[in-house]
Order: sequence, then structure tokens, then C-alpha cells
Amino acid sequence: IAKLVLKVWMFLEKAWKLAVDDPRKVIHGLKVGIAITFVSLFYYMRPLYDGVGGNAMWAVMTVVVVFENTVGATLYKCLNRVFGTSLAGLLAIGVHWVASQSGENLEPLIVGVSVFLLASAATFSRFIPTIKARFDYGAMIFILTFSLVTVSGYRMDKLFDMAHQRLSTIVIGTALCILVTTLICPIWAGKELYVLINKNMDKLANSLDGCVSQYFDHSDEKSDSEDKALLGYKCVLNSKATEETMANFARWEPAHGRFNFRHPWKQYLKIGASMRSCAYCIEALNGYINSENQAPEFIKKHLSNTCLRAGSNSSSVIKELAKTIKTMKKSPIIDLLVGEMNSAVQDLQNEFKFLSCLSNSNSPPLEEAATPENKKTEKPQKTTIATIPLMDIISAVTFASLLIEIASRIEA
Amino acid sequence: IAKLVLKVWMFLEKAWKLAVDDPRKVIHGLKVGIAITFVSLFYYMRPLYDGVGGNAMWAVMTVVVVFENTVGATLYKCLNRVFGTSLAGLLAIGVHWVASQSGENLEPLIVGVSVFLLASAATFSRFIPTIKARFDYGAMIFILTFSLVTVSGYRMDKLFDMAHQRLSTIVIGTALCILVTTLICPIWAGKELYVLINKNMDKLANSLDGCVSQYFDHSDEKSDSEDKALLGYKCVLNSKATEETMANFARWEPAHGRFNFRHPWKQYLKIGASMRSCAYCIEALNGYINSENQAPEFIKKHLSNTCLRAGSNSSSVIKELAKTIKTMKKSPIIDLLVGEMNSAVQDLQNEFKFLSCLSNSNSPPLEEAATPENKKTEKPQKTTIATIPLMDIISAVTFASLLIEIASRIEA
Repeated sequence: IAKLVLKVWMFLEKAWKLAVDDPRKVIHGLKVGIAITFVSLFYYMRPLYDGVGGNAMWAVMTVVVVFENTVGATLYKCLNRVFGTSLAGLLAIGVHWVASQSGENLEPLIVGVSVFLLASAATFSRFIPTIKARFDYGAMIFILTFSLVTVSGYRMDKLFDMAHQRLSTIVIGTALCILVTTLICPIWAGKELYVLINKNMDKLANSLDGCVSQYFDHSDEKSDSEDKALLGYKCVLNSKATEETMANFARWEPAHGRFNFRHPWKQYLKIGASMRSCAYCIEALNGYINSENQAPEFIKKHLSNTCLRAGSNSSSVIKELAKTIKTMKKSPIIDLLVGEMNSAVQDLQNEFKFLSCLSNSNSPPLEEAATPENKKTEKPQKTTIATIPLMDIISAVTFASLLIEIASRIEA
Repeated sequence: IAKLVLKVWMFLEKAWKLAVDDPRKVIHGLKVGIAITFVSLFYYMRPLYDGVGGNAMWAVMTVVVVFENTVGATLYKCLNRVFGTSLAGLLAIGVHWVASQSGENLEPLIVGVSVFLLASAATFSRFIPTIKARFDYGAMIFILTFSLVTVSGYRMDKLFDMAHQRLSTIVIGTALCILVTTLICPIWAGKELYVLINKNMDKLANSLDGCVSQYFDHSDEKSDSEDKALLGYKCVLNSKATEETMANFARWEPAHGRFNFRHPWKQYLKIGASMRSCAYCIEALNGYINSENQAPEFIKKHLSNTCLRAGSNSSSVIKELAKTIKTMKKSPIIDLLVGEMNSAVQDLQNEFKFLSCLSNSNSPPLEEAATPENKKTEKPQKTTIATIPLMDIISAVTFASLLIEIASRIEA
């Protein structure tokens, strides 16, 4: 029993930490509570209950099912639910009318076949990518309403009333959800996406900085916070799915804050993709840090300044891009920074040329230094040397994302 | 209008292509149709309808909402729905009893507060990772049933009957779903995961082969199919979310085929992660292929044999691992292959040492070759040279995944 108590305690502790980390999750819980309590007024208040009767159930159900964390997700579900229900209701009444005209024996057959065909078709349509992205929930609601209305039409007389009441209670439920979700501490999917992209860019820049400086750092002691910054790029690697969901929901949201109705959300996905290819490069760079084959000190020392400069220039370009996205204004100094980065990369390439000349002309000090570490002399070279193409790629990618960014700003 | 017709036509064409590519999607649609048609028999047949009455609606609803593509997902939703409903129903009846004992004025207050608190708490709990992974749907159903039963208890007398009927119709619906999904062309999430991992491994091996051979290939013409094989690793990069969902559903599935009940699904996720880090390396290698700074021919020629051997050895290790997973037997030749791969990597390192000695001792032929390409002499070196640490990483990762694999086999 002590074990069980401990387990429950640990669980509660974890929940508490989650709540403290992100109080908006608690607020979301409270919002759902408020919406459900409100909608249940339909049961408590006699005049309201008399209006809709037992169908008030549908309003409660709608609120529970439709209420999501972000405004975009809630709107997506609300609109899908309302349109799916209306369309299915109309179709079902049509089918019911045809069936009822065709005699008692044929009626169940017609109803059954139509349910089978439409349910199969709608289920299959949920696999089609364009439908899946925008109307997945709507298709499910379509099947649900259509089969409920047609099938129960076989036993009920007031079919039209039923469809009408179901629709009106659903509209009441969705309206309440939309009000609560947009008025009480709204969480906009678009803003979340924007914050996520911004945060990831900063993380990427810090990782790049940390990676380059740690490679040339001689002290073996790594502070924990540095290590954490270094691994920030892992978040970028794993955020693809989140970004896509967010962008998908953001499209349903009305204008809010600095985001217009037709804000180019797809551009964020492109920026995200660029960031991921940067992160792949950092992953590779990181491999060199942890690799056993380290460059000999003299080469490292020789290159460290140029490399550090190239690294910090690249990361400052990324940071400036993050700022550009944050302020949504074209930064005046971005061209300057990109120019600096490119010149730093150029310098790095010159250094390499110089190094290769040195090793070709067989200069004595280099030779001397190389002899004791004979076994390690080439591998190291490769290690540092390998950093430039990566730098190249990084700069290219940053530049690409810059272009995308500018394009998106112009559009916005 | 012609435009609209064209659009509809294109849409239908796309749907048709999807159906031909994966007929199981069509079969899934038909399965849903069959299940819904079956469950609507409750309306058509007088004795069945008399048994459950208007509550037959819940059975239809359950089928529509619960039926998913894979057996695991369906089972997950079924079990969650049944347990969520039972738990919420019991609690709701308890709350209703307390409320009805405490007088007419207090009743709506007690009911309202309890709904508010439980709905908020349950919604918040859906954010907790362990709950989200296994009981997300159950928590939603809990809120739904609890609020429906308690709130409508205020207007209805036969509350216990209602809860009982709701539960029994849900059980009927879920039983039907489970039967249809497991008996008619079942799609097991576990098997899907297994096939996905296998396919990704093959793609990875082909990408690696293609990447290395294209780097040393002198002909500029690339065939389309080769290019496609080369880009296979992109699938590996993007399959994280799918793998996790599949593994999550696979846990709910009973023993089927060669998969036991406690098949170590988590190992597949680890293999997937290892594959992704391989894919990052290939992404970097791929960057070198498309980079403008190519190695001078003489170095490329010198290294090509060793590199090709290392590459093909690595990929044959991956292929052998794929076979190991496919047959679920420890391969007898895997140790041999790993040994070969390691020796190839060792050879590659020796080659580099040799090259570095050459350039240090200033051998004339190398000098001559280097002079005309003075500008490109170091960069190229770096380019080929950069491939070894990557090879190193790849071999390390392959080895790691081998170990994981063996561990998982022992467990299975």
C-alpha cells in the first residue's frame, strides 16, 4: 500500500509541476468547466429546458467534444461539426423521403444501402490528404448524423423536428464554445506557432555558438547550462509535427493581434524546414565534438579565431532573423550581418588554403608539431576542416531562410 | 463551370490513385459501412429495438466514433470508452444520490459544482503525458458521461436505467467494432510498425549505397530511380510521429501473428531513433555531393575503392539487420559483417594517414596535381576526408542499433 501511495504522490507531484510550468493548461481546464456548467443551465432552467427538451443533451455533448486547447482547433471542430451536421441532416431527410415513398418493404433496404454506401465513401475520403487536413472531423460527424437521422427515421415520425433540434442544440453548443474560448484567456494556435518558431531560432543560434566554442574550448569542464544550450537544436529536430498541426489550425483563426486573416502561415513551415536542415548540420558538428579524433592543438589554435568568428556571425544572423520575425519588420542591419558572415566564411576558406600551402611547402615548425602526433595528424585536419562545408551549408540555409522571411514579410 | 468540373475530376483521380495504391483504405471504408449497417439492425428489428429503445442511438454513435484504421487504435478507443463510461456513470450516480438527499435548493448547486470541478480536473489531466498517451480518449468520455448523467439526472427519474442502458448499448457497439475490425482483413498497428521499420532500414541502406557511389561516380547523368533511392533517407527523417503513434496503439493489441502480447514495442522506437541519427549523417554526406567544392580527381580516385567498400559494408550491415528484424532470429553472419565493416573503416583511416604523409613529404606527383587546382586543393581534401568521421558515426550507430536489436531479440 505504501508503494501505491508513493506512486499516487509522484503522479500528483508531476501534475503540479506541469501546472506550475504552464498555468495556461490549468486555465484551459477551468474554461472547459465553465463552458460545461453554462451549457447545463439548459437543464436547470425551466424555460430553457422546455425549449429544447431532452435534446439539451446534444448541447452538452458538443461542448465536451468540441472544446480544444487553441482557438484554431476549437473553431475547426465547431465549423466542421455544424457543416457536417447540416449537410448530413439534409441528405438524410432526402433519403428518408425517397424511402418512405417506396413502400414498406423497400424502405429498410433503401435506408440500409444508402447508409452503407455513404459511410464507406465518407470513411475513405478521410484518407485523402486535403480532406484529412481540413475536414477530417467533419467527415466523421457527417457519417454520425447521417446514420443516426436516417436509421432512427425508420422508427420516428417527427424526423424533421429531430434534425432541426439536433442542429439548433449543436449551434448553441458551438456558439458557447467559441465565446468562451475566444473571450477567456484565448490561446491562439497562430501565436503559439509564431512563438515556437522564434524560440527554436534562438535555440538554434545558441546551439551553434555553443557547439563552435566548445570545440575550441580547452577546458574540459562543461557547465550544465552550456550543455543544455548546446542541445537546444534537438528541439528543432523534433518540432515538425507540432508546427504542422499549429499551422493547420492557425488557418481557421480570425485576425488577432498582429496576425491578419490571411497571414502566410505556410511560410512558417518553410522557415521551420530551413531550421531543421540547419539543425542537421549542427548535429553533424556536434558529432565532431564528441568524436575521439580531435585535431592537434596547433591547427585548432590556428583556426579557432576564424572559426569562432564565422560561428558567431552565423548565429547572429540567425538571431537577427529571429528578431525580424518577432517584430515583423525587415531588419536594416540584416544585409550587413549576412555580408559579415560571408566574409568570415571566406576568411575561413583562405585559412585553409594557407594551411594546405604550409603543409605542402613542408614548413619545419608544422612538421615538428606533426611528428609526435603522427597518428592523429590527418584526422584532426579533417575534423576542423570538415567544419567549413557545414558552415557553408549553414550560411546557405540561413540565407535561404532570410529570403523566405523577406518574401513572407512582403506578403504580410 | 468547366474549371469546377476539372477540379472535381482531378480530385476523383487523386482519390482513385490513393485507392489503387493502398486498397486496404477502401477495405477500411467498407468495414465501417458493414459495422454501421449491422448496428442499425437494432432499429429495423422489432425485438431488438424493444430491448434497448431509443438508446440504440448510442450503439450507432459508438461504432462511428470508435472505429479506427488499425486494430490497436480501435481497441484503445473501445476500452477507453467502456471504462470511461462505467467510471463516470458510477460517480455520477453517487453524486446524484448525495445531491438528491440534500434538498431541492442545494441540488443544482451540488451538481453544478461537481461537474465544474471534475470536468476541469479531467481536462487538465489530459495534458499529463502518461495519461495523454494511454487514456486521452477515456478522459474525454469520462467528462461527457459524467456531465450528461448528473445533469440530466436533475430532470429524469430513472437515472439508473439510463446509465445502465447507455453502458449496455456502448458495450454492444464496441463488441461489434472489435469483431469487425479483427475478423475482416485486420490491420494490426504492430505489424504496420514492423513493416515501416523494415522498409525504412532498406531505404537507409540504399541511400547510403547511392550516396557513396554517386560521390565517386564520374558520369554526370543520374538516373531518376537512383536519385529516388538516394532520397529514401528523407522518409526516415520524417517518420518519428508515425512510429510513436503506431507503437502506442500496438501496446493495446493482443498476440497476433509472430507478435506476442508483451512484444517489446519500445525497442522499435529505439531502432527508429538510431536510424534517424544515421539519416542525419546521410543528410550531411548528401550535402557534400551537391557541394560546389569537389575533391580533385587524384584524391577521389585514390580513396574511391576504400570508401566504396566501407560504404557497401555499412549498408550490408544495415540490410542484414533488416533481415534480422524480419526473421526475428539472430543472424549468424552479422558479427562477420560488422567485423568487415570495421576493418573497412580502419583501412579508410590508414589511407588518410598515408595521404597525409604524402602531402607532408612533399611528393612531386601530388604537388604537380595540386598546383593547377591550387584554389581547390584543400577544400577537396576536406570533402573526402569529412566522409570518414561520418562513416565512423554510421558504424557506431549501426553497432548500437545492432546491440539494441540483439537485446530485443533475447527479450522476444
